[in-house]
Amino acid sequence: MSISDRAATAPTAPTTDEIFAAHEGGKLSVETTMPLDSTRALSIAYTPGVAQVSRAIHETPQLQATHTWADRLVVVLSDGTAVLGLGDIGPAASLPVMEGKSALFKAFGGLNSIPLVIDTNDVDEIVETMVRLRPSFGAVNLEDVAAPRCFELEARLIEALDCPVMHDDQHGTAVVVLAALTNAARATDREFASMRVVIAGAGAAGIAVTEILLGAGVGEVILTDSRGVIHEGREGLSEIKTHYAGRTNRRQVEGQLAQALEGADVFIGVSSSKVPEEELARMNDRAIIFALSNPNPEVMPEVAHRHAAVVATGRSDFPNQINNVLAFPGIFRGALDAGARRITQEMKIAAATALADLVGDDLSPEHIVPSALDDRVAPAVARAVMDASEVEVPGATPAEGVAAQLPT
Amino acid sequence: MSISDRAATAPTAPTTDEIFAAHEGGKLSVETTMPLDSTRALSIAYTPGVAQVSRAIHETPQLQATHTWADRLVVVLSDGTAVLGLGDIGPAASLPVMEGKSALFKAFGGLNSIPLVIDTNDVDEIVETMVRLRPSFGAVNLEDVAAPRCFELEARLIEALDCPVMHDDQHGTAVVVLAALTNAARATDREFASMRVVIAGAGAAGIAVTEILLGAGVGEVILTDSRGVIHEGREGLSEIKTHYAGRTNRRQVEGQLAQALEGADVFIGVSSSKVPEEELARMNDRAIIFALSNPNPEVMPEVAHRHAAVVATGRSDFPNQINNVLAFPGIFRGALDAGARRITQEMKIAAATALADLVGDDLSPEHIVPSALDDRVAPAVARAVMDASEVEVPGATPAEGVAAQLPT
Repeated sequence: MSISDRAATAPTAPTTDEIFAAHEGGKLSVETTMPLDSTRALSIAYTPGVAQVSRAIHETPQLQATHTWADRLVVVLSDGTAVLGLGDIGPAASLPVMEGKSALFKAFGGLNSIPLVIDTNDVDEIVETMVRLRPSFGAVNLEDVAAPRCFELEARLIEALDCPVMHDDQHGTAVVVLAALTNAARATDREFASMRVVIAGAGAAGIAVTEILLGAGVGEVILTDSRGVIHEGREGLSEIKTHYAGRTNRRQVEGQLAQALEGADVFIGVSSSKVPEEELARMNDRAIIFALSNPNPEVMPEVAHRHAAVVATGRSDFPNQINNVLAFPGIFRGALDAGARRITQEMKIAAATALADLVGDDLSPEHIVPSALDDRVAPAVARAVMDASEVEVPGATPAEGVAAQLPT
Repeated sequence: MSISDRAATAPTAPTTDEIFAAHEGGKLSVETTMPLDSTRALSIAYTPGVAQVSRAIHETPQLQATHTWADRLVVVLSDGTAVLGLGDIGPAASLPVMEGKSALFKAFGGLNSIPLVIDTNDVDEIVETMVRLRPSFGAVNLEDVAAPRCFELEARLIEALDCPVMHDDQHGTAVVVLAALTNAARATDREFASMRVVIAGAGAAGIAVTEILLGAGVGEVILTDSRGVIHEGREGLSEIKTHYAGRTNRRQVEGQLAQALEGADVFIGVSSSKVPEEELARMNDRAIIFALSNPNPEVMPEVAHRHAAVVATGRSDFPNQINNVLAFPGIFRGALDAGARRITQEMKIAAATALADLVGDDLSPEHIVPSALDDRVAPAVARAVMDASEVEVPGATPAEGVAAQLPT
């Protein structure tokens, strides 16, 4: 492709009219897998033929997994309390985001997915609702639920439902950050064990990134929020922050973000707050900066580059886009292909490793993660997740080879 | 088409293998309405573009109706307590039926539909669940819920949800029966006002058929159940049967089905019980017999024809198939196109009239209803329902012309 060709096909920002036109009537369509245009077809898909299948499932319940769509159906579930950067806009207004997510599950993971938005913020009621509907679906992608309620809700859903459940705002982000950090470490000749990481933002993403980095063996993680560094001596910490105060910040640094950044190797912003350049200047040489707030990064890349060797954002118009779509379609696909009942920390770390490894010899400071449109991504992540899963149900058969058949 | 061509394409009964193969992985697929294969497409359907749509819905809630799929999405809801002739096989085993129903909504009504099966039989809990999920859908087709609970559940859902709700086992059947009876009356020169109708079976279908026939002006309806004729003097009637004892059986006939059939014009069987030929012999000349139990009619057509001028069943291998698929896709399509909040008795009677009228000049004792595969059916029913609807919400705009664009 010549330079002029690239210019000719360079994306222009979609107009508002174009965006609204694309949303008219919604972005999803339910289709039938067989044509229903003959008496014979009707007698197979509906009465009387369907009665044989229903009777068989009644007698042999595990046939539901193979002879209905439910066992591989991902529900994208939200109460609309933390939608993108818009906040608590409610379930109805969150629907376009959830439809988009369901669309991405099909486009990238080859999985059927439906959005369910729920008009309650009560954890008990949300869990109860999903338990009642349990025979209707096979996995739950929790989305855009406000912290700290999202932590309890995810834990309660995992406990109550014997199927994969994942809050993507936490773990999708964490997996892609870990993949990016793995390659950023390679690009700057660092080891996780001796790395000092500062995370700005202790919400859903910040907590999950902390957890996965600790699990991956990062030497020091310091978590900060709008009031400053989280440490054990700080007054008025929430339950979850108290928990992480004890597990992070091994030198028990106190103060503000500026103090935390003193001698840090990595800054990860998931906070929506701007970071002054002089604070970033306190980081170590050849630092790593992931400014992930969308659409406005904590620091713009051109500024970040003055103080860092590797810079990533959440935006598609800069290099190194850290985008959840790299993770969730393959994670759910792999978990469902494996017949896994849980999405474990091992599966998430395996997903991150697979993502990082896909970059391979193309690794450079400007290229630490694959493109969101790279069609190798979902199959590679699914395969890694499947390999890392422990099938807990006796007799369940991992669907070997299915991940290799993902749409490309 | 020559006779030999017809023989060559005559349907053979599907084999069990064929039926199970068609159900592998389920019968539904969720697709995206736009390809998601470029950064630009992602930025329209997902972030950052989708945020504009979510924000707009938050500010102007009625945009949910036009810019998500939910407002025209039909949930097929069941607790699996009265599935086909299989009975209470539970929600998981009911799924193939509900998937089939959702498939029919798309194939015949052009509507998106998803099955939700619920693991509780408690009316309060089912209603509560649907109220919580209210922003996720636009209509509810209740399916295969056991009587008499189905009556309370439907009434409670109608009260709690401001959208079309219909228990198809009741009203779908009732609409098609009314259409068939309209044409059977024409074929035998009868008037509804002077007609004596006996209904065997006082479950969901029997009650709904009674209600619609009374609404359509049928002179006498006698309802019977396994214990005999329902009349005001009978001991131990349930609440709903007591109600209909007072509204039917104007001569207050007592006894068994045989007594009710004495001088009757019409027998409608929705009972799964066989009817002895000698009892049918008590009916008037040129009688009308609808033996609707599936797959085994109350009386086989060759026997019924000895005592009746018009015979219908629920089976596709005899003439005059009374099949709900003639009604529900068009009823929901018309109600949604009209922006109706209720499916009223007027809309159901209009649907039946439209169905009956479609037969037109082809009317004969062997042809009183259109074929389930007649592609004029759903648009005609939808149009009639739309015309009969009263849009209750100020400012809501009937989607004129949409019914005319149904898939053909």
